[in-house]
Amino acid sequence: MPGETSVARFQTKPISGARDFLPLDVLRRQYVIDVIERVYQSYGFEPLDTPVMERLDTLLGKYGEEGDQLIFRVAKRGAKLQRALADAPTQDEIADAGLRYDLTVPLARIVAEYSNQLPRYFKRYHIAPVYRADRPAKGRFREFYQCDLDVVGSSSKLVEAEVLNAGAQVLQELGFHGRDASGFLLRLNHRGVLRGLMEITGVPAGLESEALVAVDKLDKIGLDGVEKELRSRGIDQTASTALLDLTATAPEETDAALCWLEEKLVNSDNGAQAVTELKNVVTLTQTGPAADHIRIDPYLARGLSYYTGPIYEIEFPTLSGSGGAGGRYDDLIGMFSNRSIPACGFSLGLERILLIMEERGLFPQKLAGQPQVLITNFDSETLAANIELAHALRQTGLRVDHYPDPDNLGRQFRYAEERNIPVALLLGGNELAAGTVTVKDLTSGEQESVAHADVADHLRAGLH
Amino acid sequence: MPGETSVARFQTKPISGARDFLPLDVLRRQYVIDVIERVYQSYGFEPLDTPVMERLDTLLGKYGEEGDQLIFRVAKRGAKLQRALADAPTQDEIADAGLRYDLTVPLARIVAEYSNQLPRYFKRYHIAPVYRADRPAKGRFREFYQCDLDVVGSSSKLVEAEVLNAGAQVLQELGFHGRDASGFLLRLNHRGVLRGLMEITGVPAGLESEALVAVDKLDKIGLDGVEKELRSRGIDQTASTALLDLTATAPEETDAALCWLEEKLVNSDNGAQAVTELKNVVTLTQTGPAADHIRIDPYLARGLSYYTGPIYEIEFPTLSGSGGAGGRYDDLIGMFSNRSIPACGFSLGLERILLIMEERGLFPQKLAGQPQVLITNFDSETLAANIELAHALRQTGLRVDHYPDPDNLGRQFRYAEERNIPVALLLGGNELAAGTVTVKDLTSGEQESVAHADVADHLRAGLH
Repeated sequence: MPGETSVARFQTKPISGARDFLPLDVLRRQYVIDVIERVYQSYGFEPLDTPVMERLDTLLGKYGEEGDQLIFRVAKRGAKLQRALADAPTQDEIADAGLRYDLTVPLARIVAEYSNQLPRYFKRYHIAPVYRADRPAKGRFREFYQCDLDVVGSSSKLVEAEVLNAGAQVLQELGFHGRDASGFLLRLNHRGVLRGLMEITGVPAGLESEALVAVDKLDKIGLDGVEKELRSRGIDQTASTALLDLTATAPEETDAALCWLEEKLVNSDNGAQAVTELKNVVTLTQTGPAADHIRIDPYLARGLSYYTGPIYEIEFPTLSGSGGAGGRYDDLIGMFSNRSIPACGFSLGLERILLIMEERGLFPQKLAGQPQVLITNFDSETLAANIELAHALRQTGLRVDHYPDPDNLGRQFRYAEERNIPVALLLGGNELAAGTVTVKDLTSGEQESVAHADVADHLRAGLH
Repeated sequence: MPGETSVARFQTKPISGARDFLPLDVLRRQYVIDVIERVYQSYGFEPLDTPVMERLDTLLGKYGEEGDQLIFRVAKRGAKLQRALADAPTQDEIADAGLRYDLTVPLARIVAEYSNQLPRYFKRYHIAPVYRADRPAKGRFREFYQCDLDVVGSSSKLVEAEVLNAGAQVLQELGFHGRDASGFLLRLNHRGVLRGLMEITGVPAGLESEALVAVDKLDKIGLDGVEKELRSRGIDQTASTALLDLTATAPEETDAALCWLEEKLVNSDNGAQAVTELKNVVTLTQTGPAADHIRIDPYLARGLSYYTGPIYEIEFPTLSGSGGAGGRYDDLIGMFSNRSIPACGFSLGLERILLIMEERGLFPQKLAGQPQVLITNFDSETLAANIELAHALRQTGLRVDHYPDPDNLGRQFRYAEERNIPVALLLGGNELAAGTVTVKDLTSGEQESVAHADVADHLRAGLH
């Protein structure tokens, strides 16, 4: 409407389900990512990066029908789009690309494309955003980070041990200790255990995946809910009850749980083999960071159908939702290569870990990257000397902001406080004549005079 | 076709114009980004991050008509898409989002949305990929990184000095020194100088932007080419010749060039004011890292119409194309806020800098992040002791890979060499009995026996 332009409100919020990160948010996220990256690297993993967009063909059909609907499609361009639009098109005909849905399908593509350039065991980590056109909700975003760790090429259970240890060490270094309220559990199970339990309780082979889907919801809907769901998915009362009764009696303690499973599954080939593998994983983690956190959980199912061996999930006691999860998936990585390639991995849920760290106050008070010193702006006569001082301090590694305008000092100090800068320096005519700098502590308000040549050392001592 | 499934070739290359980065690529990119980030932070800048997708409305109309065509559009979903597709839709009706085209429009959106939370001067850096549906070519990608540095809120020319110094310091720390073949130039000009030159040579005010577009092509098409283009854009022979003759006589040396401009532009208000500002910028950079690299270039135009003051571009002598560029753009940041907000920034061209660093061999031999030690896999009896060793070494900060399978040693060593791991450790039955570890230098082939307790120190000494 004419005349309204000057009051028009532009929509300046980020797009639905995505977030803007202001400096403190970025620094906190970066602090966590740096720890994850350092630990992943200490386990011999190397970084991989792939485009945000993948061919639509690469993405479709990999995540089930529901997954296909959650892929953000990128439209074709120019004449190709015109042709597609001309003739009652579908969503897949107008698009030729999509935003990546996870970091696992890109890994499978990489393994197929660069097989000659990759080492015998490809140990990669990938920390990057993924995209899902899901309904946004508290804690559920359409753009969110995954922190993946995978080993491609080995069936050794040492791989599981390394991956679990790396995940546990990340959380320990972030401040999660023990397995009680302030710590975390690594719930561990095996797809073969689940299959064995179904065999011996009489769930028909054809209904195993139906049963898995139901069992996977135990956290959300409880035992009664799962039983109802098992029934609704065609599993009869006897089998449902037997399955749930059986797992309800599993002991908590790891060795006892493994013995119990061994006994119960002695007549199931699938089950017996799985228990042997689980025991192997537990033995191999015994001297590492994961040891104190592992809990055998015969209920743990993990929704994704591609898992083939051990599966695991991070649980924060007293909090719902998972902080990460993974497992062995020996048939997925080879999908673009037409061969079977063993693989095993783990993904940390960055968003959830950040949320819990915030609740528990686990971030350091001072985050690396924030400016440490403000050089005030006095007048045009002393500006050159102030610029020189800024440069000299930066050369020593200090993070130095320089107030751009010759404003009144109160305003300059307020700006420093707003930005969390703890110290301001004043270098005016008097200081220049005396060869000093006035150092003002903005927390205490105290100020002192320091010889020009000593300022860097003085600041460094004060900042530590 | 039936029977062909097993030989079907999936397309596993990355999408056109985008790249996969294998570990060494990522580590090299990360090395450069780390330097950029450290220097930016040392100048008091803080990180910002925004979503890869923006509302289509936010992006359209900001980059000219050509730019609008280069925006990757993300399709609407579900019923909204169905409705849009039903009725002879256009490319803008089927999409509700687009991939960001640069990091400047997102900054403008952030300044409008969070004005209450941002400090008086907002000094942010943003290192992230941007997307353009351009025709891919050598060195031109559809997904590429920008490394932006901007100060919002001040008109002080100290801001220009800080931004130029930060850019220069990044390049110096990456190994570019001086202004000759192995170094770089910061070509500096001012939009007001260009305007002034046109005034005094008789280019009509209405044709100034036409003339700017032509002058901006000097690098690519030479003086004759520019003259032809000026003529074809409606600028008469006299003005064209005068404009080109005039700038051709500008002295190389900075102070001389400024004096020359001052003389020539004494009768142009625009021009005189611009020269004063340029002199100010030059004076304020005199004691910083940019000082030795600045060259006044009255031809430099920079294509983007949003610049309002000083403009600059990094040039690598003997190489075409720019390594970064920026300028003052006082009218753009306020576009979502309906107010005028001064701003000045700089963007380093990561891809081009990486390319030149590779050509000149400027990457360090050893990149942080690569594994340093391989623990070999002996047999199942000694595996636990080997896992313990791996864990102990990682605790000291070493990056340790552990070979997953009990393979023959030659194969294990080859794997280490493939991955550039310089040292392998052997801890078998004999070593365990003797309390030692055999340390094999994979470069020389030599091996020695080291007491178990001393291995970490021994490795650390050898790796440095």
